[in-house]
Formats: sequence, structure tokens, C-alpha cells
Amino acid sequence: MAKDDKKEKAPGFTLKTPKGTKDWEGKDMVLRSKIFDTITEVFKRHGGVTIDTPVFELREILAGKYGEDSKLIYDLKDQGGEICSLRYDLTVPFARFLAMNPTIQNIKRYHIAKVYRRDQPAMTKGRMREFYQCDFDIAGVYENMIPDAEALAIAVEGLTAVGIDDFTIKVNHRKILDGIFTVCGVPEADVRKISSAVDKLDKLPWEEVKREMTDDKGLDADVADKIGEYVKLRGSTELLVKLRADEALMANESAKSGVSDMELLATYLEAFGVLSKISFDMSLARGLDYYTGIIYECVTSASAPPLVSAASTENGEKRKSTKKSANEDDDVSEFVGVGSIAAGGRYDELVGMFSQSKKKAIMPCVGISFGVERIFSLIKAKEDMAKIRGSHTQVYVMAFGGGKEWTGFLPERLSVASSLWRAGISAEYLYKSKPKVRQQFDAAEKVGAPVAVILGQDEYGLGKVKVKLLGQGDASDDGTDVSLDELAEHVKSVLAKLN
Amino acid sequence: MAKDDKKEKAPGFTLKTPKGTKDWEGKDMVLRSKIFDTITEVFKRHGGVTIDTPVFELREILAGKYGEDSKLIYDLKDQGGEICSLRYDLTVPFARFLAMNPTIQNIKRYHIAKVYRRDQPAMTKGRMREFYQCDFDIAGVYENMIPDAEALAIAVEGLTAVGIDDFTIKVNHRKILDGIFTVCGVPEADVRKISSAVDKLDKLPWEEVKREMTDDKGLDADVADKIGEYVKLRGSTELLVKLRADEALMANESAKSGVSDMELLATYLEAFGVLSKISFDMSLARGLDYYTGIIYECVTSASAPPLVSAASTENGEKRKSTKKSANEDDDVSEFVGVGSIAAGGRYDELVGMFSQSKKKAIMPCVGISFGVERIFSLIKAKEDMAKIRGSHTQVYVMAFGGGKEWTGFLPERLSVASSLWRAGISAEYLYKSKPKVRQQFDAAEKVGAPVAVILGQDEYGLGKVKVKLLGQGDASDDGTDVSLDELAEHVKSVLAKLN
Repeated sequence: MAKDDKKEKAPGFTLKTPKGTKDWEGKDMVLRSKIFDTITEVFKRHGGVTIDTPVFELREILAGKYGEDSKLIYDLKDQGGEICSLRYDLTVPFARFLAMNPTIQNIKRYHIAKVYRRDQPAMTKGRMREFYQCDFDIAGVYENMIPDAEALAIAVEGLTAVGIDDFTIKVNHRKILDGIFTVCGVPEADVRKISSAVDKLDKLPWEEVKREMTDDKGLDADVADKIGEYVKLRGSTELLVKLRADEALMANESAKSGVSDMELLATYLEAFGVLSKISFDMSLARGLDYYTGIIYECVTSASAPPLVSAASTENGEKRKSTKKSANEDDDVSEFVGVGSIAAGGRYDELVGMFSQSKKKAIMPCVGISFGVERIFSLIKAKEDMAKIRGSHTQVYVMAFGGGKEWTGFLPERLSVASSLWRAGISAEYLYKSKPKVRQQFDAAEKVGAPVAVILGQDEYGLGKVKVKLLGQGDASDDGTDVSLDELAEHVKSVLAKLN
Repeated sequence: MAKDDKKEKAPGFTLKTPKGTKDWEGKDMVLRSKIFDTITEVFKRHGGVTIDTPVFELREILAGKYGEDSKLIYDLKDQGGEICSLRYDLTVPFARFLAMNPTIQNIKRYHIAKVYRRDQPAMTKGRMREFYQCDFDIAGVYENMIPDAEALAIAVEGLTAVGIDDFTIKVNHRKILDGIFTVCGVPEADVRKISSAVDKLDKLPWEEVKREMTDDKGLDADVADKIGEYVKLRGSTELLVKLRADEALMANESAKSGVSDMELLATYLEAFGVLSKISFDMSLARGLDYYTGIIYECVTSASAPPLVSAASTENGEKRKSTKKSANEDDDVSEFVGVGSIAAGGRYDELVGMFSQSKKKAIMPCVGISFGVERIFSLIKAKEDMAKIRGSHTQVYVMAFGGGKEWTGFLPERLSVASSLWRAGISAEYLYKSKPKVRQQFDAAEKVGAPVAVILGQDEYGLGKVKVKLLGQGDASDDGTDVSLDELAEHVKSVLAKLN
């Protein structure tokens, strides 16, 4: 049967992972796991607990949550039964979870898991169709801006912990943005679509965004120009002073309330010692529909979009590297415009959207999501990958001997290895009944084991093995004879000394 | 916009996770994570490295690998582009990975991730449509039976490490089974389908399986009866002696070679000290097509199928609990027939099935897969869930004060909390500007924080806070005054003493 299958199938298919997905392995995998572990530690430090939701949700749960991006949702095939889609982010499933569990009145939850977007992976390098998100969200009715400030503190702490220092967090407020649009004269019905044009300012020059507002979305050119003046504004607390002094803007209740929030936020950010990392930035819009308050994006110099030449822009091509024609180094292109490395915001109405009673559930939420795979690219460029060990093996169990009587000590090696395992020590040996000495040292070196336990033809009969440090070059010791009874304890003390 | 969405959608949908999936949260989540961590440690101890493959694969990669179970594969909707399916296990993606990376000539890889099966979750309690697998596989050309024995040693070590002791590992060999079928007179073309009938012996009585072989699959009744004699056989090494003495069986090359393998395996299992856990069992068949050698399943008393009353069997109903009519306790029903808690086998031809050159890649593999969610059910029944803490919070930062001058010390609490975070200590505080003393103690108790850091109205101005142990009942101390400069170090030493 298996053979028939082979013959039928071998010519017909392409051996690859689906478009926009990849296998993670080797040192990349070790480094990525390290990043996950580091960020998880930060989450736990802030009292976070984790939940795990299914990879797919009922399609109607995801409907109407992502604005223009909804077209990127992966659907499952209708094979009878429910209609489902792969999750697009971890936020909507979290809101669905909260709506289903009304007894949970507050929670700080973190979730590190894969999400799925049918994006064009070729268009935006480093953007995959399957990728990890690393989210921390604070849900509950709390005093204004305290959880928001902590979410930003977590962003700073998380990025710093993984080794990124040269970042800025752009912060804006949906209420200020909405106020700006109203004050500039955008009809209320057009606010969301104009907002989604502003959202592209991190990828496109203002002229291009203005063209979209006017030509594509029918906005008056002078209204667009007024918006253009506001979205240029960025800075630290002096910007908040400037907005406070803008009488036209302060006459708008939404904008006024947003500025008050930002002022309070700034006080708390200062108490957390992270205000210097923040840039209040009126050009930040965030594409997703569900945000209702503070929004933010963490960027580094590597987050900048690739240079767009005037010619290619006029041709309507977006995000094209000017290096395109040059002999591009894959590693370099990975770093061209990785986009934001963490982002989030407040979404006070999302849980209520799932509420089925007439009295909508009120569950204010604020969250931060780390783009761990983008962070991975940045860290990898700085890290000395040669120093990363793939496996954790501490001991290589070997047999030395020869001659006619030589059995290779295979069952004996298995027995010694299992005594080490039982003591919690990681150990390997060569899967060969009569291995050569050289082969065993090579294998030990390949996995980077720091210690060898050697079963010598004569000594083993006397209940003794040799424990030898590896990787010491010429200064290599001759090893220490240890009785089998004391082996595990002895190896533990040797390993403790090495660390 | 968001409000319109709400009004349109609220009546139309069901607030739930898709059928056969669930959210994991709270103490269940903590316990499951602990099981993952424990098994990961075992995997690393054996030199395992991890890889991460996509959740979906090209559909043709999964085609022809799962026999009758292929109908349970989840497909993605055709939204243009490639046709993909959710992974059914972690083994086929691993084989695809090896075929794509021919420079990897040997690897011990572990992978803990979710897999998807469109099974009837109501029929088999505890069997979900989305569930975790926890796999360790050894790939490479090695001497016969060494990796197989280590895979079984890992099974024993893993189950023991998570706290399960009363288990048995049934071991059989595809070559022996094939030999038995041939010797009994099964036509070669029917071997796989008769094997998949034998596979049901853990769920159905022999009479039912015989009926399937004869009525459904057209086997002669006397051939079925001969098979019936063989599949009754089980035992330790004395069974291997018995098979070796069976001249009819030993005349079959396949069976003879299988028995030789088992004899060698037994030697190595004894060296690993795990032979007492093994039952060589001729009734074990394993449903999947891709196995070529040793196959095994770990069972406990809780793995047994529910009692099937004679009446319900005659009605063709399968797996019905006799307790059905009683007032069933949900927690009890979870344990009725959880099935095998770990399983695996050797699959030497799977990687070759993906090979596209005429010379098929040879990559022998053997693996063990832990059914972690079934293991979870068993552990949960034994564990004192009240003792499991949801969060890891070590310190609760509080403010005590009152009167007109009282500010609530919010920015001060934020500042103290962030100094603890920077020192790697997990800390929380109440998201309230002027919290009451009682509220703060209640919140600290709820998260189970063992230490309070208290900002007193007078002391804080002098640069001092109080560090107090919590949860000490009446023996509670009055706390120690500590200067802010020394706070992190002091808290670390207090926590170290507590552990």
C-alpha cells in the first residue's frame, strides 16, 4: 500500500511548506524560544496568567472586527457542521472568551500563539501568513489610564529585556484623532475610512495618503490639507501642551477628553520611568476597527519603510526597496522595513460586541502585542549565532576498548545513560554497538556536550568509569575515575562548577 | 461604526468555541503547562531539539498517509492559491521537513503542538477536535533497535515524571502482525484492512472484530478464528520464546525477522531498566498506514473502554457507558476510557514517500507521542487543585493612609512596582488612586502574593517602606522597615527564605 502511494504521488506534488509559512529549526528556533521565554518572564512579573484559545473560531465571531483587513482572514472549508476561520489575532478570541465567562471581572492575561493572515508575503518581506503574536492584555473596570500606562511599561520592559534599546513608542488616542477629523471637516460617516488612510503614513509619504483621501475616498483637498497639518505633530509632553492650547481642537469634546487622558497617562509613564521612550504622534491611526482609546506602536530604525523612489511611487507601486536591482543579500532584505515591533491599544467595546443580553457587558480592555518574529530578525543580526547551542546535552557516554573480547559495552552504556537520566542529567551515547573512539568524540563535540563519561574495557568491570571534561583543547585533563554508585552526584558537581 | 456592528450581529450568532475545541484557563492551564514543562525536560535530557512546523500543510503532503482516518482531516477553504489542510499529527510534517532538508542526516527532535481531527467529540469523551501532541522522534540510520528502545525508555520516563506509575506499554511489531496474517491465510491485498479491524480490539470485544473481518471485510471465518488465537497472546519475554518456538510462524520471513527485533529490543529495554513496564501484545495493530516496525501504546487502568453491555452491543452501539442512566458526574465521565496515553512506532518509509528523486531517500524514524490532554485528566484527578496558584505574583505594593492630605500614593506605587520589576521581581498593585487598606489585602490574597510592600503616609516621605509577609494568619508580623534603595535586595532575600 505504502509503495503504491509513493509511486502515484511522487511526481505530482511540490515539496514545500505553504506560501507565507516556514519551518523553524536549529539555532533560529533556540533563539526564538529564548525571546519567548524572556517576554513570558516579563508578563509573569506583571501578574499575568495565560489562557489558550482554539486556533479557529466560528466565522461570525471574527466578522466585523477588522475593518478593511477582514479579507485577509483564512476560512476553513465547509465539511459539514460549523463554519470556522483561523484566528486573525489573539485579541478578538480573548474578547470572545471574556464574553463567554462573565464571572471573570478582571484578568491580566498573556497569550503567545500563532495567528493567520492571507497577506501577500512577497510584497512585505518578513511578513508571514503564519506568525506568532505575544500578547498581554488587562481587562477590567479600573481607574482611567492606569492599565494603559502599565501596558506601555510592559512594552518598554519587554523590548529592553530581549535586548532592543533603540526604540520609540508612538502613542496616539482615537478620541483625539476623531476630534481632529471632525474639527478639520471630515463628515462623520467618513471618519473610519479617512482614519485608515492616515494609518498608511508609516508606509507612504503624505502626498500619497492625501491622494487616497481625495481621489479614492472623495475628501475635499482643503480638508485633507488641514488633516495634514495635524498629523505632522509629534513630540513629548510639550505636544500635549500645544494641543491643550489649540482652542479649535479643545472645543471638540472628544479631542478634549483624549488630551486629558494623554496628560494623565504621561504622569503615570513618568512614575514608571518610561516617558523618555514615548513620542505622542498624531500620525498614528492603527487600522483595526476595535480600538476606542489610547493606541501605540513601537518602532526602531529598522522599522522604517524602504526608500520609495519617486518613479515607482508614481507607478502606484508601494514599498519597493531601491536595492531591488542590486544583488540583494537575504539577511539584509529581512531588515528592510520590518514595521512596528510591538503595538496595541485600548478596546473598551469589543467584549460588549459579543454580549447577547440587551444590557451590553462592559469590559474595558487594553493590550500590547509583541511582533516576536520581527524582534527575532533584529536580535539575530546582533547575536553571535555561533555561540548558540542547539541541544542541552550535558554528558556523552562513551565506551573505549578493542580486541577480540571487546563487546562495545552497548547495554552497559544504556544502563549508565539511564542512571544519569534518572538523576535529571541530559545524556547521549552513540547508537552503535561497537563505536570507534574518534566517532564518539566527534559526536560529543557536535552536540557540544561539556562532559564525557567513559566506560573503559578494564575499569568498568571494577565498577568504575572515567569522567572527563571536553572542549578543553590541549589542556585536556586525563579524567577522574569515579565509581558507578557515585557517578550521578559527581557529574552534577562537575556541571555545577562549569556553570 | 462599532455600535452599528453590535446591533446587527448580537442576535445572529452563538457565543461558543467551535465543536470539539475549548479554552484552557485558570488552574487547568497552569497544570497543563506544568505537564508540558516536565515532558520537555525529559525530551531535552535525551538530547532532543525542537522544531516548529506550520499548522497547515499542502493537502497533498497529508494525502495517503492516514488510511481510513484521512476522512478526519480538516481542509482550508480554497480562497485562491494553494490547497491546504490542518495537520493531523506532528509526524507527517516532521517527515516532510526531513525530506526538504536532506543535509539533516540525523536528528532527535521534539515538538509540542496542536493537531486537528474532525472526529465525533461526543462519541469518545475526552477526545477533542483540537488537541496537543507531544512528540519525540529519532531519525537517522542507526543500528537496529537502539533508538526504538530509547523511545520506549522516554515513554516510561515521561509518564513517570508527570506522576503516572500504573501504566503498561503494549508493544507489537508490524512484521510479526503481517506474518501472522499471512500464516493464518489472509490474502496479501487484505492485510491492511484486516489489520485495521484488529486495531479496534482495544475498544471492541473479539466477537465484534471477527464480525467486521468476516461480514464487512469478507474474510473466511476459520481464517478469522486462527487470527483470534494469535491476537490473544500477550506477555513479557516468555511470549517471545513462545513465538520463536512456533514453527509455522517462524517459517514466515517477516514474522521471524520481527521476533528477532523484539528479542534484541528486550535486551536493550532491560539495560534501560524499563522491561517490567512492557507487555508484548499481539492484539496491538495501530491504525496508521505509515508504521513499518515496532509499534506501541501506553495504557493505564483508566485507558480501558467503558463496559459494553451485551444488549447495546447487539444493537450495534459502541462504547456506551453502563453508567449512562445514572446521574453521571462530569469529572467521572472524563475518565471513562481515556484511551492510550502515549503511543508510537517505527516508520522507515514515510520520509521516502516525499522523496522526488528516483533514488528514494532512506531516513528510518521511530517516535513516541504523549497524549498530554488525556494525561492531564488523569493528573487532575490526583492533584490537589486548591494548592495550584494561578499567577506568579510575589509582591503586592500597597499604600496606607487617610485624611485630607492623603493622595493615595499612586505614582509612588507605580514607581516602587517598576523598581521591583527591574530587579526581576513580580509585583502588582491596585489600579485605583485611593484604595482602601482592606481592598488591597483582599487583592493580594486573591493572587496569592506572599509579600506586601507598604507605602505608609509618613514613612514614605522618609524614603522608607514596610515589607510584610502575607498569609501568616494571626502569627502575622508587623513588617520590617526598609529603605527604598535596599528594597529590591531585601525582598529578594525574603522570597529566597520563603522558598
